[in-house]
Amino acid sequence: MKERILAEAERLFWKYGVRLVTMEDIARQLGISKKTIYQHFNDKEQIIYQVIADKAVKNQSEVACMTTTASNPVEEILQVLNMMQKHAEQVSPNLLIDIKRHYPQAFALFRQYKEHQIMRSILENIQKGISQGLYRSDINPAILARLRVEQIELAFNSELFPTDQYTMHQIQHELIHHFVRGMLTEKGFATYNAYCPKPSEYNPTINPE
Amino acid sequence: MKERILAEAERLFWKYGVRLVTMEDIARQLGISKKTIYQHFNDKEQIIYQVIADKAVKNQSEVACMTTTASNPVEEILQVLNMMQKHAEQVSPNLLIDIKRHYPQAFALFRQYKEHQIMRSILENIQKGISQGLYRSDINPAILARLRVEQIELAFNSELFPTDQYTMHQIQHELIHHFVRGMLTEKGFATYNAYCPKPSEYNPTINPE
Repeated sequence: MKERILAEAERLFWKYGVRLVTMEDIARQLGISKKTIYQHFNDKEQIIYQVIADKAVKNQSEVACMTTTASNPVEEILQVLNMMQKHAEQVSPNLLIDIKRHYPQAFALFRQYKEHQIMRSILENIQKGISQGLYRSDINPAILARLRVEQIELAFNSELFPTDQYTMHQIQHELIHHFVRGMLTEKGFATYNAYCPKPSEYNPTINPE
Repeated sequence: MKERILAEAERLFWKYGVRLVTMEDIARQLGISKKTIYQHFNDKEQIIYQVIADKAVKNQSEVACMTTTASNPVEEILQVLNMMQKHAEQVSPNLLIDIKRHYPQAFALFRQYKEHQIMRSILENIQKGISQGLYRSDINPAILARLRVEQIELAFNSELFPTDQYTMHQIQHELIHHFVRGMLTEKGFATYNAYCPKPSEYNPTINPE
């Protein structure tokens, strides 16, 4: 039952944010009573906390899997984009804002996940890219990893990116491709171009005419 | 006298942030009494407000000047970097944090400057770059301009970039070069490479071997 509650809560939180979803809503969707939910969780914060904890573990193993199967760091980062976009399509921009404003423990957990796992994955990606000659050797990995990590929250900021003007998909796509391209060497561009769909307008090569 | 007070306050604020500098400090440096300062300003917030207002006008005309003299958008953005670095060398990372936390009117003015003038300059730069074939035609100018504008505050965030690990100069350099490179077309790279000092390690060309 605990797993069913978490799965349904996740679906609803992702779709509407956390604040608008009540314990009642979750119970109704599952055809159970609120009392059953309270047998497993004290309050909504405990549910969102557990959802984030589970999500962090799951995302991390997806990323670890990509790191193993991708043949190079450029492919790896573009696979992570695909993964994010699959999630992003379903996600309400309210989600992170609600958590930040109203669920401090859950937000602290997200921050911790961001500062540790995500940061480390990005740093490793950058260092691998440099050592394979795909990213410039003159970049500062720590500064750019920080930039990338901050972009994750930036994309959720609907004051900066009003939801009636941009989709999350569009923002993530724009930011990640720009992020990768800014690091590429000539060799890196050859690899990058091989992974990107390229109508000539869409993805001009940097190779010679 | 008002101009002398503003000039000295600016120098002290830039060096130590706003909070640590007292009206007494400003008076002492100028060899005047505090009373003389209070003849011109009600409080420190009024001084920092005026300093920012003057700075915004001055910066904006420097940028306008670069836009006129630079022969292309890539040169223009790299000149703005030089200008920022000249200022950044002298600036305390406390400055923006102090203003954000303790001087709401001054911060609102900075925000307004950022949202209007800076945003517009960046957008114009991106649009010109695209129309001249130096930046990719498939980028979304509004999303990337927003990214760049947010990087300005990011660089000042000493929780993210601890001052014992990074200089402002280093952060700005890294972020702006990465920002420009992420937008460049092949033609853009040729132009960019012509403006950058290039020990081969430091600035690898993207042109063919």
